[in-house]
Amino acid sequence: MSYSPQTNKNGRLNHLLTIEGLTRKYIIEILDHANRFLSFGDTILLKNFPILKGRCVFNIFFENSTRTSSTFEIAARRLSADVMKLNITGSSSSKGESLLDTIDNLIAMQADMFVVRHSCSGAVNLIAEHVNRVSPNIQVLNAGDGCHSHPTQALLDMYTIRLFKKNFRNLRVAIIGDISHSRVARSDIWALSILGVPEIRVIAPMTLLPVDIEEMGVTVYSDLSNGLKDVDVVIVLRLQNERISSPVLPSAQEYFKFYGLTEEAMGNCSENAIVLHPGPMNRGVEIDSKVADSASSVILKQVTFGIAIRMAVMDILHQEKSEKDNGYG
Amino acid sequence: MSYSPQTNKNGRLNHLLTIEGLTRKYIIEILDHANRFLSFGDTILLKNFPILKGRCVFNIFFENSTRTSSTFEIAARRLSADVMKLNITGSSSSKGESLLDTIDNLIAMQADMFVVRHSCSGAVNLIAEHVNRVSPNIQVLNAGDGCHSHPTQALLDMYTIRLFKKNFRNLRVAIIGDISHSRVARSDIWALSILGVPEIRVIAPMTLLPVDIEEMGVTVYSDLSNGLKDVDVVIVLRLQNERISSPVLPSAQEYFKFYGLTEEAMGNCSENAIVLHPGPMNRGVEIDSKVADSASSVILKQVTFGIAIRMAVMDILHQEKSEKDNGYG
Amino acid sequence: MSYSPQTNKNGRLNHLLTIEGLTRKYIIEILDHANRFLSFGDTILLKNFPILKGRCVFNIFFENSTRTSSTFEIAARRLSADVMKLNITGSSSSKGESLLDTIDNLIAMQADMFVVRHSCSGAVNLIAEHVNRVSPNIQVLNAGDGCHSHPTQALLDMYTIRLFKKNFRNLRVAIIGDISHSRVARSDIWALSILGVPEIRVIAPMTLLPVDIEEMGVTVYSDLSNGLKDVDVVIVLRLQNERISSPVLPSAQEYFKFYGLTEEAMGNCSENAIVLHPGPMNRGVEIDSKVADSASSVILKQVTFGIAIRMAVMDILHQEKSEKDNGYG
Repeated sequence: MSYSPQTNKNGRLNHLLTIEGLTRKYIIEILDHANRFLSFGDTILLKNFPILKGRCVFNIFFENSTRTSSTFEIAARRLSADVMKLNITGSSSSKGESLLDTIDNLIAMQADMFVVRHSCSGAVNLIAEHVNRVSPNIQVLNAGDGCHSHPTQALLDMYTIRLFKKNFRNLRVAIIGDISHSRVARSDIWALSILGVPEIRVIAPMTLLPVDIEEMGVTVYSDLSNGLKDVDVVIVLRLQNERISSPVLPSAQEYFKFYGLTEEAMGNCSENAIVLHPGPMNRGVEIDSKVADSASSVILKQVTFGIAIRMAVMDILHQEKSEKDNGYG
Repeated sequence: MSYSPQTNKNGRLNHLLTIEGLTRKYIIEILDHANRFLSFGDTILLKNFPILKGRCVFNIFFENSTRTSSTFEIAARRLSADVMKLNITGSSSSKGESLLDTIDNLIAMQADMFVVRHSCSGAVNLIAEHVNRVSPNIQVLNAGDGCHSHPTQALLDMYTIRLFKKNFRNLRVAIIGDISHSRVARSDIWALSILGVPEIRVIAPMTLLPVDIEEMGVTVYSDLSNGLKDVDVVIVLRLQNERISSPVLPSAQEYFKFYGLTEEAMGNCSENAIVLHPGPMNRGVEIDSKVADSASSVILKQVTFGIAIRMAVMDILHQEKSEKDNGYG
Repeated sequence: MSYSPQTNKNGRLNHLLTIEGLTRKYIIEILDHANRFLSFGDTILLKNFPILKGRCVFNIFFENSTRTSSTFEIAARRLSADVMKLNITGSSSSKGESLLDTIDNLIAMQADMFVVRHSCSGAVNLIAEHVNRVSPNIQVLNAGDGCHSHPTQALLDMYTIRLFKKNFRNLRVAIIGDISHSRVARSDIWALSILGVPEIRVIAPMTLLPVDIEEMGVTVYSDLSNGLKDVDVVIVLRLQNERISSPVLPSAQEYFKFYGLTEEAMGNCSENAIVLHPGPMNRGVEIDSKVADSASSVILKQVTFGIAIRMAVMDILHQEKSEKDNGYG
C-alpha cells in the first residue's frame, strides 16, 4: 500500500481525507458505527454523547457552505465537543497569509480536530501532511476539497444505499451529471468500487466527463434512458450554476431536456429504484420536482444520515487517537 | 374562527406567526409569563432556566439582523437550548435552492424550533404550513416577515406599555412613520386592538400610508401636532434608508421637519407620555436626540423586555408541544 | 495620576483599554496570572475553569478579524463563559445607528463583558466612558482600536519576551515596520518602557514613522542593519496591504529589499535573538520565510500565549468587579 497521510501503519484512520485507499472492511465498520447514533424505525438522531467532551473541533471553511458546515457542527455538538466556526473566506486569506500559516495559527490555538472545506483540490491533504509533521495529535476531516474528494458525502450515500438495498453485491448504480467537477462523484465511485458494486455507470454529456474516467471502473453513457436501464440506485449530481451558459453547456433548459431526471426517465430503472442527491437541488435543471418529491427519493434521509455518519467518523478518529496515545498505534 | 396555521383546535399556539387572531386572554397570558424571566425593580433578566435543555433552536435569517438574531439567541440560551445560527443570505438560497427545500433540509437535521426572518411577507406562514404537513413537532417563531408581521416586537411593545401605563383600556396610542412598509406597525395595531385600546392613531405622509388603513380601526393623521394631541404612548417607526430620496420621500431633512419627534412635538402629548422605537434609531430623521435620551423614552427597556418576551414565547410553545405529546392537544 | 476610564481609585482595572498608565507591578501581575492557564514544558493551554460560568461575554467586532476574535472566544469559553459573537460590519452600523446607540442596545441585552475591536482610534475608550456612566457593571476589553492600542497583544508579547529572555532590564528591543499606523507598536512601546527595557528602537522608512516618535523614549533607525545591531528581541510588524503602492511606499519588493527581515539581517542581532510578529505574516514582504520558520521565531508561541493572556485579563477583570461588588473597590 502506498503512503497516505490519512492512515497509520495498521491502515486505520488518523484523518479522513478521501475514500480512496480505505478497505471494504473499514468502510463497513464506519457505516455500522453510525447505527448507534440513530434510533431506527423513526430514524431519530440521538444526542448527548459525552464522547468529545472537552475537545475543541474547528470548522474551517475556506469555501462557503451553510449546509455542510451546519451538519458537521450539529454532529460535533451531539458528541459534546466545543465547536469553533471559522469562515476564512475574505478574512486572513485575503490578507495575504499563506494557507499553512493560517493552519499553524489554528494549531497554536490548540484545536483537537479540524473539519476543513477548501475550493482547491488537494488543499486538505496538504493540511493533513503538515499536521502530521508539526502536530500529530490533531485530526483532519475533509469536508470537501475542490473537485477531489468529499468522503463523508460518499459514506452517507453508502449508508443510505445499504439501508434501502441491503447489500452492494448485486447493484447497478448510475451517477448523472457533471462528473468532471464533482468531488461527490469521485468519492462515490471509489466507495462503490471498494464495496464491490458490480456495475457503476456515469451518465453525462461529453463536455462534463473527465478524460479516462473509464479507468475508475465505470461505464460511460451519454444517453439518459440507456444509462438508467435496470438501475437500482440513481445519484443525481447538482449542476453548478457556473457551468450553465458556459462553453460546456448551452442552457439549463437544454440540460434538463437531455439529462434532467424525470418520471419518464425513472421508468427505465428497476422497480424500487432509489434517487439520491447531495443538495442543494436545482429543481427543473438536474431533477424534476415530481421525482424529487416521489417515494423513490431518499434525499432528505441522506441529510439525517449525514449527521450520524459525521458523528461516527469523529468518534472513530477520536478512538484511533486514544489508542495511539495509549501506545497501541 | 378561520383556519390559521399557528393555532391548534383549542386556539393555542403551535407556532407564533402573527398577532392577528390571538385572543386578548392569550396575549395577556404571554405578557404575564414574561414576568418570571425578569427580576423587577432592577429589571434584571434572569438566566439558567433548564426549560429547553437538549432542544435545538435554529435561528434561520434570510434577511440580515444582528440585533434581532442576538436577542433570540440570548433568549434561547437562557432557556438552556442549543442554538444553531444559519444566515442564509448569499448561501443556499443564492445557489438556486427553493425555500421549502432549504426548510426540508433543516427539518432533516432534526431541529426542535425554527426562528425565522424573511424579507418576503408570508414566507414564514408558508414555512409553518409546510412544517405542519411534514414535521408537526417543529415549532416556528416569526422573527419578522416582509411588511407583514413581527409578533414578538408587538408583544414586547405591549409588555412595555402595560408596565408603564398599567392597562390598555383608557389609552391613546399614536404610531408615527412609514406605516406602509412596517411589519411593526401592523403587528402593534393588531395587538393594541385586541387588547382594547380605544384610540389608535397613525401619523404619516400619505405616500407612506397603505390604502384602506382605516379598516384596521385606526384614525389617520397627516399632521404631527394634531396626531399627538393628548396621546399617552408614541411608537416611532424607523425610516428605512431605502425610502429616503425615493419618489415617496424627498429627503431625510424634510421628513424630520414634518414628522420628526421633537421635544416641541412631545408637548402635544398627555403628561407622562412614553416613547417607543423598535430600533435601530435614525437620530435626526424620525426622532430628535433630546427625545430619544429623555425620561419619556423607554426604548432601551424594550430591548431588555424583548428578551424576556422571547423566552416566554419559547417556553409557551414548548409547553403546548409537551401537552400535545401527552395527548391533551 | 490623570483620570483614566480604565482604572478605579486604587489603580486597578475596571476595563482594559490601553497599556499606557498601568504600573510595572500590575503588568507583571497579569503576566504571572497567565501562568496558571498554561501547563509548562508542553505549553499546553489548560481548560475548563469555572471562573466565568453564567457570565455572558459579547465579542463586538466593528472590524473583521477571524484570528483575534477566535482567540478571545476560546479564552472566554475556557473560562466557561457564554460567548455572543457580534460582527457589526455591514449590520446596524450601516443602518445609520450611532455607535453609542448600538452599545446601549447591547447593554440592554445584559452582557457582563464587552470585547471590542473598532477601526477608529479612541472608539473603545468612548465606549468604556459611556459604560462607566450608564452601566458600570460591564467591563470593556479593547481588542484593537484604529492606530491607537491593542493591549492584549502587548501583554502577550511581554509574556513571550519574558519567557525567553527571563527579564526586561538588560534588553535591546527593535520594532520594524509601519510604526505610524500600528496599534501593536504603540502598545508594545508603552509596555516595554513601563517594564524598564533600557533600549527600544524603531526601524522604519521616514514615511511610516509618526512625528515626534522619539518622545515615546525610542531611538529611530532608518537603516535595518544598524537598527538590529546587538538586538535581543525583534518585533516585526505586518505591512498592511493598503500601504503598498500608496504614496508612502512604492512596492512590496522595495520594502522587502530595505526592511524585510532576512537571515542576513538577523546576523546583526545578538546571539539567541528572538523574532515576534503579531500575524498574519506577509512572507517575502516584511519577513523572509527562512526567518519566519527558524528556531529564532516565537511567532506561533505568541498565539498560544495570547489565549492564556486573554484568560488572565478576563479573570482579573472579573475579580476586580467581584471585589467592587463586595465593597472593597
